[in-house]
Amino acid sequence: MNDTKKPNTSLQELKDQYEAARGKHLKLNMSRGKPSPGQLDLSNELLGPLDSFLTEDGTDARNYGILDGIPECRTLFADLLGLDRDRMIIGGNSSLSLMFDTVAALCLFGTGGNRPWQHYKYAGTPVKFLCPSPGYDRHFRICEELGIEMIPVPLSSEGPDMDLVTDLVRQDPLIKGMWCVPLHSNPEGVCYSDRVVEQLASMETAARDFRIFWDNAYGIHHIYEEVTLMNILDACEKHGHPERAYYFFSTSKITFPGAGVALIASGPDNIRELKGHMSAQIISYDKLNQLRHVKYFKTPDNIRAHMARLADELRPKFDLVLSKLEAELRGTGLASWSHPKGGYFISLNTLPGCAKRTVELAREAGVVLTDAGATYPYGRDENDSNIRIAPSYPSLGELDAAMDIFILCIKIAALETNKK
Amino acid sequence: MNDTKKPNTSLQELKDQYEAARGKHLKLNMSRGKPSPGQLDLSNELLGPLDSFLTEDGTDARNYGILDGIPECRTLFADLLGLDRDRMIIGGNSSLSLMFDTVAALCLFGTGGNRPWQHYKYAGTPVKFLCPSPGYDRHFRICEELGIEMIPVPLSSEGPDMDLVTDLVRQDPLIKGMWCVPLHSNPEGVCYSDRVVEQLASMETAARDFRIFWDNAYGIHHIYEEVTLMNILDACEKHGHPERAYYFFSTSKITFPGAGVALIASGPDNIRELKGHMSAQIISYDKLNQLRHVKYFKTPDNIRAHMARLADELRPKFDLVLSKLEAELRGTGLASWSHPKGGYFISLNTLPGCAKRTVELAREAGVVLTDAGATYPYGRDENDSNIRIAPSYPSLGELDAAMDIFILCIKIAALETNKK
Repeated sequence: MNDTKKPNTSLQELKDQYEAARGKHLKLNMSRGKPSPGQLDLSNELLGPLDSFLTEDGTDARNYGILDGIPECRTLFADLLGLDRDRMIIGGNSSLSLMFDTVAALCLFGTGGNRPWQHYKYAGTPVKFLCPSPGYDRHFRICEELGIEMIPVPLSSEGPDMDLVTDLVRQDPLIKGMWCVPLHSNPEGVCYSDRVVEQLASMETAARDFRIFWDNAYGIHHIYEEVTLMNILDACEKHGHPERAYYFFSTSKITFPGAGVALIASGPDNIRELKGHMSAQIISYDKLNQLRHVKYFKTPDNIRAHMARLADELRPKFDLVLSKLEAELRGTGLASWSHPKGGYFISLNTLPGCAKRTVELAREAGVVLTDAGATYPYGRDENDSNIRIAPSYPSLGELDAAMDIFILCIKIAALETNKK
Repeated sequence: MNDTKKPNTSLQELKDQYEAARGKHLKLNMSRGKPSPGQLDLSNELLGPLDSFLTEDGTDARNYGILDGIPECRTLFADLLGLDRDRMIIGGNSSLSLMFDTVAALCLFGTGGNRPWQHYKYAGTPVKFLCPSPGYDRHFRICEELGIEMIPVPLSSEGPDMDLVTDLVRQDPLIKGMWCVPLHSNPEGVCYSDRVVEQLASMETAARDFRIFWDNAYGIHHIYEEVTLMNILDACEKHGHPERAYYFFSTSKITFPGAGVALIASGPDNIRELKGHMSAQIISYDKLNQLRHVKYFKTPDNIRAHMARLADELRPKFDLVLSKLEAELRGTGLASWSHPKGGYFISLNTLPGCAKRTVELAREAGVVLTDAGATYPYGRDENDSNIRIAPSYPSLGELDAAMDIFILCIKIAALETNKK
């Protein structure tokens, strides 16, 4: 497809190329942040038999018991992330579940003696969350499901627009929460600066029960460059708001998306409160899987070494996507895109009004992308320009073919729109 | 302790024996329905390495995907229990979580277009559940946590008092739910008769969104006698209420309490609705563990053979408890007890007003029993007489020692009360 390099390829020529691609009946998927089989293979040894079922405190991991997770697993992740193992709960295989259950608990029961958030719904004034956007569609889905209004907030290269955030939370007591993916954010690859973290921890909020949902999903998922992140829980404590943030993490993209372990950490009162609610919901999460993870990794350094191997798997895919975009679109004015240092995504912006059409064209030619708009609350991208590229799952060959078609679709959608 | 057999042992003599037992500083626990290490060992092979990670439909069980559980796991349990695999969701390791999440979903979202149950709370008229009692304390805990009022209903040998149940549900539209442990019930060992199941399925209810929470925790856990149970979902469908019951089951007491698999089955609309809510809460449960269970058991017959081996582990413990009660208390008028055909418990009734004191005396002598009252909603046993005995976890030797002390405490509490 070298000829698409010509800046003035006509719409008709592009469409001919598109029809040729479509004729190949490809089935390619760049829609979800799913590890490839090669990445998963790196953790297979974790699934070997266990030499003992006893945890550090003598509990039989096969049986009931230990609601908050086996002590050695809490220690491992506390050491890895700079958290306090006594202010942490290891859950099941899904940090998304811990997030949903936490927001649901706040809706049903409230926190710190404040009103349950459902109260506001029944009073006709639902609570609101700030949603740095573009962001993670499943965060937005939790809010929609629970009837929480979402307010999009723009992201800069160092985090959410803090002038806007501080204004909003100071003025509106109905703003009770905020989603943050503070490292290698989904999809923009934004890493929050120390200044932003300090502001989030220190800012004045009208709601006493304002909470930050700190989804550090890509906390150690560096690909091109190691980025450090200020510890939000420490910062909140320092600024006198020890219960402001819930910190989430999981090994879904370290070991197995389907069978990893997830955790929540927070202030002492929040953790006590959550354990109380959890004790009505579950006797204990899967401790054998926690034990597997501890016996496999043993130390934080081993986890970091493992992440370096995973990065070696991912880097060629990111290289390929970025070099294709560079070669085909740089200087054309048809698109701009992120240059992430880690994480799972590249975020691309088409010309305004072109994202939906681009995604539609790609789908018809066998390339599935995340739905245009999905990265915004309510699926509403006012500019219709953001598209999330997830390069991890396809093979390099598939990615190569998919990117050619995707770039073609960006150009066609742009030219079609220009003609109108 | 042969001398306790004498019917007319004085209170002082009993107290002397008690002090002697207390001096031994024993630490024995008959409080929770926990499998013994020997039972757990029977499933250890399940934890061996998997020869393939692919499910029947070609999905990589290590990765994201398949919200409702891998097809072969749904097939296995559908065949075992006479359920429809397409009206089933395999969850994580805990049926209690599936119950809590289902009741919480009904509180937050309602079902079938009816009002969320939280609505009634905010309107000042909370919804109510019927609670056959004595029953499972964790069911009652879910209701308490979610602000659902509990109405105790007596149990006969064939199930709940259906005259009372049918009257109540016909008259009161706020009665939205009912807990049932239909086989080898916790703690009474009651098995619901076909007549009771038919009545539950066919009865007229004032609430359109009345739901039965059918916790078949001991559905294949026969010890002395195999008991059959009418299929509640089929019965509900036959009587025109296909969405009336949620059916729960788990392998917590088949393989591992900490690392089994749990399921919920129901009518087609309920399952569709639950999948919708779950899709906001989780991407997929642990499919590798589902795969382990399928590869280990392969067929329903193998599961039943496994249950026969587990019953062989449990039977001597039940024999011991029952023979001690028989030898020491039969004909004394001091206690009556259940004669379960399976399950995990023996339910004992002391003289009125003696259960709390008995449990207290036992605890002081190093024998932990389930709290008196725990088997009733709000922990309120009006007669203060029911005590749940859980013989599965201790060794035979421990159980022997624990039962001697327990029986001594029953006698002392009875004589103390008589004297007042």
